[in-house]
Amino acid sequence: MSGRLMVIGLGPGDDRYLTREALAALEAADALYGYEPYLDRVPAREGQSRHASGNREEGARAQAALRQATDGASVAIVSGGDPGVFAMAAALCEEIGAGPPAWRALDIAVVPGITAMLAVAARAGAPLGHDFCALSLSDNLKPWELIERRLDAAAGAGFVIALYNPVSRARPWQLSTAFERVSRYLPASTPVIFGHAVGRPDETMTVTTLNAAGEIAADMATLIIIGSSETRVIARPGRTPLVYTPRAAEDALA
Amino acid sequence: MSGRLMVIGLGPGDDRYLTREALAALEAADALYGYEPYLDRVPAREGQSRHASGNREEGARAQAALRQATDGASVAIVSGGDPGVFAMAAALCEEIGAGPPAWRALDIAVVPGITAMLAVAARAGAPLGHDFCALSLSDNLKPWELIERRLDAAAGAGFVIALYNPVSRARPWQLSTAFERVSRYLPASTPVIFGHAVGRPDETMTVTTLNAAGEIAADMATLIIIGSSETRVIARPGRTPLVYTPRAAEDALA
Repeated sequence: MSGRLMVIGLGPGDDRYLTREALAALEAADALYGYEPYLDRVPAREGQSRHASGNREEGARAQAALRQATDGASVAIVSGGDPGVFAMAAALCEEIGAGPPAWRALDIAVVPGITAMLAVAARAGAPLGHDFCALSLSDNLKPWELIERRLDAAAGAGFVIALYNPVSRARPWQLSTAFERVSRYLPASTPVIFGHAVGRPDETMTVTTLNAAGEIAADMATLIIIGSSETRVIARPGRTPLVYTPRAAEDALA
Repeated sequence: MSGRLMVIGLGPGDDRYLTREALAALEAADALYGYEPYLDRVPAREGQSRHASGNREEGARAQAALRQATDGASVAIVSGGDPGVFAMAAALCEEIGAGPPAWRALDIAVVPGITAMLAVAARAGAPLGHDFCALSLSDNLKPWELIERRLDAAAGAGFVIALYNPVSRARPWQLSTAFERVSRYLPASTPVIFGHAVGRPDETMTVTTLNAAGEIAADMATLIIIGSSETRVIARPGRTPLVYTPRAAEDALA
C-alpha cells in the first residue's frame, strides 16, 4: 500500500490567508511535519501525530515524511507562505530525486499558499502590478556573485524586485550591498517597501526610497519590495501611502 | 461619511483557493464589481448588489466602484487570481492617482489571492523553488522590444520565468518568438510547463522541453513556466513528472 504526501502552504502570519484547500488537506492528514512555529499555527486534532523540527532541517524532515507516507499514511508537511517559493516543496523534490524508487511512486500534492510578497504587496497597494521577480538574498545556497548578477539583470531590465531572506545574523552586509547595487540602475527616489511580520500582530509596513532604504531595520521576517523606475507613490492624508506599478510601461532605453 | 473599497482575489479556477480573509471580505461588501466570470463565482446574497463589466473595462469599473465607496458604501471589486498580479489592484491605484482628492481619503484594502503561477507550480512540483520572475507577454501596454529585453535579462541571469497572458487572437506570434528568444540562453532540454485552466474541471498540465514548446497550444487561460538551466524533471511511473528547481545554484558563468 502506498500513502500520500501533501505539502501545505499556510500563508504568512495568522490564519487569515488559509485557503479552503489547505484547511481540507490539514484535516485529511494522519501526521503533520514542520518547522515548530508553523506547526504551532495548526490546531491539534486527536489521532493526528505532530513532528516538529528545526528551521535548517528541511532535508531530514522531508525524508521522515516520505518514509511514513511510504508505509501507507497520509502525511502532510506544513510550510509558511507558499511551499513552492523558497520553501519545503523544492526540498521535498530534491529528496525524491535522490531517494529510493518507492518515493517516486507516492501520491504527492502541493497545496499553494499566499506567499509573503503577495501579502506585503496587497498591504502597500499594487507594487507588483507589472513585471516583477522574486530573489532570495541568502548566499548560503548560491554564490554572492550570482545574486549580484541577478540584481543587475532585474533592475536593469525594469523588473520590480521582491527580496526574500534579506538579512540574518550570519549575513549582515548583503542587504545594503544589494541596495547599492540596484542604485546603479534606479533613481534614488525609487520606492522601497519593508513589510515586517505581515499578517502577525507585530506587523509593520515602511515605505521609503532607495537612497534611504539602508537605514531601515530588517530581519528574516521582513519582505522587501524594490520598485522599478515606473513605480509610483500616492500620498494620502491620514493614511499610509499607496504604492503601485502601473500596468503600462514605456521602453525607457529605446 | 467615507466608505470602504476592497479588491478581493478569488484565486484561479474554482473556490478551493479562496482564503478566509477573502470569504469575510465578500460577506462584508454592500456591492460587488467585476468581470462577469469572476462575479459568477461568488454566490448571490440578498442586499448585495452586483455590477458586471467586460474584460477590458478595468478603468471604468474602478471608477464606478470608487464613486459608490465615496458615497459611504462598502464596495468590493472581485478579481481572479491575485488582484496585485497583472490585475485590478494596479488599475484601481491608477484611477485613484488621477482622480479627485476624495478618492485618496477612502479606506482601501487589497485582499491577496493565489496567483496562477503559484497554483500551476504546485501542480507541477516546485519549479519556482529558486529565483524566478513573472512577465506578462502582452504587448498591448508595453512595447515588444521591452518584453524581449526582459526575456533576455531573465533567461540570461538564470531566473525561472512565469509567463502571463501568453497568447490571444490579436497576439498570435509572440509566444513562439519568446521561446526562440530564451533559447539563446537556455538548453533545448530546459523544462517548460503549460498549465491550462488550473483549478477548473477542464484543467490540463503539460510538461515539455523548450525545443518542443512551440508545438503546444496555449490561450489566455494558460500560464507557462520556463525553467532555468537548473530546473529538473523526475519521471514517475504511472504519474505525471515532478518538475522542480533546486534551492541551491551554482554560478554557471563564473
